[in-house]
Formats: sequence, C-alpha cells, structure tokens
Amino acid sequence: MKISFIGAGNVAFHLAQALQDAGNQIITVYSRKLQNATYLAEKLENVKAQDHLDFSTNEAELFIVALADNALPEVLPKLRLPQATILVHTSGSLPLVILENIQAIGINKGVFYPLQTFSKFKAMDFAEIPFCIEAEDLETEAILFDLAQSLSQKVSRVTSQQRRILHLAAVFACNFANHLWVIAQEILSKEKLSLDLLKPVIRETVEKALTTNPLDAQTGPARRKDTAVIETHLAMLEETVIRQEIYNLITQDIIYSNKIDLQKLNELNH
Amino acid sequence: MKISFIGAGNVAFHLAQALQDAGNQIITVYSRKLQNATYLAEKLENVKAQDHLDFSTNEAELFIVALADNALPEVLPKLRLPQATILVHTSGSLPLVILENIQAIGINKGVFYPLQTFSKFKAMDFAEIPFCIEAEDLETEAILFDLAQSLSQKVSRVTSQQRRILHLAAVFACNFANHLWVIAQEILSKEKLSLDLLKPVIRETVEKALTTNPLDAQTGPARRKDTAVIETHLAMLEETVIRQEIYNLITQDIIYSNKIDLQKLNELNH
Repeated sequence: MKISFIGAGNVAFHLAQALQDAGNQIITVYSRKLQNATYLAEKLENVKAQDHLDFSTNEAELFIVALADNALPEVLPKLRLPQATILVHTSGSLPLVILENIQAIGINKGVFYPLQTFSKFKAMDFAEIPFCIEAEDLETEAILFDLAQSLSQKVSRVTSQQRRILHLAAVFACNFANHLWVIAQEILSKEKLSLDLLKPVIRETVEKALTTNPLDAQTGPARRKDTAVIETHLAMLEETVIRQEIYNLITQDIIYSNKIDLQKLNELNH
Repeated sequence: MKISFIGAGNVAFHLAQALQDAGNQIITVYSRKLQNATYLAEKLENVKAQDHLDFSTNEAELFIVALADNALPEVLPKLRLPQATILVHTSGSLPLVILENIQAIGINKGVFYPLQTFSKFKAMDFAEIPFCIEAEDLETEAILFDLAQSLSQKVSRVTSQQRRILHLAAVFACNFANHLWVIAQEILSKEKLSLDLLKPVIRETVEKALTTNPLDAQTGPARRKDTAVIETHLAMLEETVIRQEIYNLITQDIIYSNKIDLQKLNELNH
C-alpha cells in the first residue's frame, strides 16, 4: 500500500518504519517543521518531506494522521487530500467523527490506533501491540484490519465509545500508576533512600497482577484491613495533605472492592 | 550456618531454599499447622517440622521469624530460644524493637528483610532482591550482612525508621498501583473490553518509568494540563464518586508535581 504520514513524532516514527518493513511504500511525511519531516523521511526509503498540508496531488492511497491530539483541530481544516483515498488518525482519545470536516470527495475515514507508548530511540515489537480499528464503512474497515494484521497479532474492532473508555482506563493504569512511583520516589528521598530499592518489587507486582488478576493479586494493609498500619501511614503523610487524601481514598476503595468481590463469591456459592 | 525458621509461608518457603542452596543447613521449620511446616521441611534436606514454639534445645545459630506481621505479637512471647543465638524477623513494616521482649539470655537481634513479593509456585532470582539489614550490634550486623551477600548482590543497612518509610513508599508503588489496575479492569468491563488490551502499554509504562525517571516519563492529560479531557473523564466517573475523587486528586498532584519540577529547573537555570 502507498501511505503518507501527517505527523513525524514518536508514533509516526515507529509506525512508518514498521509499515515499510511490512512491504508498504511510504510516499510523504509532513511535519510543521520541515527538519522533523526530513529526519523521519531520511530513515525511510525514497520518501519526500514536506511542511505544507496540500496533498491534493499526492499518490498515497492511505493518509495517516499521527499528531498530538490538540494539533488536530488546527491541522485538519487545512488538509487537502486527493479524491477517493483513506484518511485515518492514530489517537486513543479522539472519536472517528473528528475527521468529518475534511473537504475532499470520496474520502473513507477510519481510526488506526496502536495501543502503546512509544519512545523515539527504543524499538518496539509491533507483533505484540494491540491495534484498535474503526471505520465508517466495512470495506475501509477490512483494508485497515488487513494492514494492522500485517504488523500485529492483536487487532480488534473498537468503537469510538469503547476507545473513550479504553483511554480513561489507560489514564488510571498508566499515567496514575506512574504518578504513584513519583510519590514513592519523593517519600523515599526524605530518608535519602533510592527508588532502586523498590524496582524489583514493583516489576514483580506488575507481573503478578497481569499474569493472574489484579484483584486477586492485591496485598498490603488495605487488603488486610490492618487499621493500625493504615493510621500510622496517614499520620506519616500529614505534611502532604493531597497525598494523605489519595492514601485514604485508595485504601477505602481497596476495602470496598474486596467487599464487592466477597459478595460476588457469596452469590456464586449460594 | 545452622538456621531454623519460625513460619512456613511464602517468604520462609523461598528464603529457606535459597539459604540451603547457598550452603547453609536448615534445622527446623515451625508452623502453627504441622502440615504446613512438614510441607516445607520435605522440600529441604533433613529438616524437622514442629508446631510448638519451644526451641530451647534447638541447635540453630540463627532463628528467622518469617510470619505475617499480625502474628508476631502472639507468637514472640511464647518463643523459647537457646542462649547466645541470633533472632531476626523478615518484616518490612515492623521495627527491630518488636523483638525486645524475647525471654532468653544473650540473644542478638536483627532484621533480615528481602524486599520482594513472593508467590508460592514462582521461583525468584535472589541475586536481584534487595536485602535490608539491621542489627542491635555490629557483630550481628556483619553476620547478617555476609549471609545476605551470599544470596544477593544488593544488600544495604537500613534502619527501622528508613524501613518504615520504605514500607509506606511500597504501599503507594505496589499496592496502590495494583489497585489502579483493578479500577482500569472494572472501567473496561462495562464496555466488555479486556484488560489484555492494556497489558503491553502497562508493561512499557513501568519499564519507561524505572529505566528513566517516573517524573520525566509522565504523559497524559494531567501532564499536559488538558482540562477538556480531564473534565470529560470526571464526568464519565460520576457514578463512582470515590474514583472520581481519586482521579481528581491524582490529576491535581501530577500538575502540582510538575510545577515543583519546573521551579527546580528554573532555579538550576538562573
């Protein structure tokens, strides 16, 4: 397939290379800054870099918008596409309908969302990355599905509403979990201790949660309803009121979640 | 070294085998339930199982208490030890002084804390497990330090106060992170989506945070101060008030942490 990229950030960087490796031909890479487009284009074979949004004579069959979410409302109205091509975005948090105002005839629209966080200099194994596919019509969906399957073993149809839920869940599972490690690091730094001490147990906690089930894998004072330890911890957090409240609320929610679980078990047993 | 274990749970199970593999001789394993002590004893070589706490004629030089934290206040007063031996516990959350009421002459006391979460049927690479050592006297500290170094490359002296801080940090970094995956799983289940979709991005988030720095690795709507997305997410959580408040507080704390970070950067640059 002939493909052009609107965007030259981390997603475009990894996705363009993976698509080229899978036998597709990348035609053009756009970035607002020409040097960013050129940087990616030079990593690929015979690819043109451009810093304007007029693709009306571009020979690609598929245009992939891989930009920061907040850049789309500005970029999309300026985009000029040839007729009868496919336009997709790669965003986890934006609906398919964000593409509706494109001014061109016979554009088939979809979402081609690789559910992974990309770093510029770290190669990713695309075979393990879940791809979430959505399209306005079945033919486009089939084309996007085949393309994703040429990269990954884990391709699903995911609606805009499901992707909204996925994004909310990912904020808890990734951004907020990451912030708990920021908090842990700050707590440790007050006693001149390094987060290195906790890294093995963090990694093992993740593996236990993801290979069994996070609800079953839970341990610690909240799970045991060990009120003496919980009270001590709350007192230790008195100087950081937000964190004391985060401790308090997550502890309550762990206790509550396990009650619910117990009820489910009881229902199953009776 | 000749070692007896008070406790036959997950920590004792893995630690006893690792210590035996390192050339030590396990003498006795105690559990309140004889069958649990026997189960572990039979995995080891020539080890006696017992369900009473009279060790006064036991030939071990080191007694390792590896019990649930809440069992210690009940078990320790009943413990009968021979004279001039070493007694340690393996707890991350209990101070050294919890051992002070042991009734025996010339007992040297310490803490021998492997900072890891153990599962019964999963082998652990002890070389990578941080050991936290504390003792009442330097001679005992040296003995415990050598013993830990025969198992692990990562042995540190850690005071009771530091261990208290480590435990609080571990509750955030492990128990609370695990609970965020429980929340993510529940959010997904409402749209019949599986946590499997998020597992690759969770694993990559952990690796990015732990190989770089969690504060620098942060992404997402709170990090970008994307108030439109934050408002949408809060509205989506209206039916679960505690989780709405958890979202709100962690978001505030991410924004706050990055301001602090910005201040630090400004200080460095001026």
